[in-house]
Amino acid sequence: MKQITTLVIVAAIGLSISGAMTFSAAGGDDESSPIYGVKIPSRYRDWRLISVAHEEGSLNDLRAILGNDIAIKAYREGKLPFPDGTIIARLAWDYHPLEESAKAFGRAQSFVAGPPKNGVQFMVKDSTKYASTGGWGFAQFDDGKPANEAVHNTCFSCHETAKSRDLVFNRYAP
Amino acid sequence: MKQITTLVIVAAIGLSISGAMTFSAAGGDDESSPIYGVKIPSRYRDWRLISVAHEEGSLNDLRAILGNDIAIKAYREGKLPFPDGTIIARLAWDYHPLEESAKAFGRAQSFVAGPPKNGVQFMVKDSTKYASTGGWGFAQFDDGKPANEAVHNTCFSCHETAKSRDLVFNRYAP
Repeated sequence: MKQITTLVIVAAIGLSISGAMTFSAAGGDDESSPIYGVKIPSRYRDWRLISVAHEEGSLNDLRAILGNDIAIKAYREGKLPFPDGTIIARLAWDYHPLEESAKAFGRAQSFVAGPPKNGVQFMVKDSTKYASTGGWGFAQFDDGKPANEAVHNTCFSCHETAKSRDLVFNRYAP
Repeated sequence: MKQITTLVIVAAIGLSISGAMTFSAAGGDDESSPIYGVKIPSRYRDWRLISVAHEEGSLNDLRAILGNDIAIKAYREGKLPFPDGTIIARLAWDYHPLEESAKAFGRAQSFVAGPPKNGVQFMVKDSTKYASTGGWGFAQFDDGKPANEAVHNTCFSCHETAKSRDLVFNRYAP
């Protein structure tokens, strides 16, 4: 039960990352994540949209899944497994009622992204470097700083539940 | 009451559009929207992310707000009103429980984008052409076809509730 709980918490947290390549960090921070040695990919906020998601419960956020050009191309072509060089980013923000809508309805109807929340996560595909974790490296950054090793130890086991989709939870939203 | 209900339904539907420019339509469909004469902007699915949202109730969707380069620049610089040429797109998909997560929790925890839903909407800024509607033209397309005139008659009055933000509901999610 403990194992599945851990799995599920991480599933809920969503996608993660790590990096074979050396990335220049956004915001001048170039610390890399434990285990996988991933840095924050340069200009990831400009990447194209893969999909959107919402986590209920204590996570209580709205999230966007973005992909670099290799990721977007593979998704659109329905290519599995994802090719080396694929990077997928998961951003998240507080689940925030839209003021105008709440006022008009007398209750929350529309929810929008509030301040950033639950870190930023990345998955990096390098089938050689990350052969022991399904070809994926994982990373989470909280306020630009890599999360600790315990957090990164949970990524792979959770993502394995999406084995039929090359460990990636999110499908492409057309 | 009827008026506020209409307002709110449209607020819930979110952003809308129309167009001063002549756009080549995605998918070979070049019909334009009533009132505002907007066509579907070419390659809008490649635009960068402004924010994400969720509508509860009968709309029950997850949405992404994308912007063309002019929109993204204005948002990042905090520029109001938005300059002419700004186009904002609102995409939406069914609010869909993530299978792996639901199985592990025994209830829905993670929601992801399902099939497209509630149309695609656009707002186009042209302060001359759309002077009588706050400088914005609006449009909604359902399965690539423009929605009817009645739908388009509701856009402006609803978006006026966000007058302090130049009629745009969504803020930029960093």
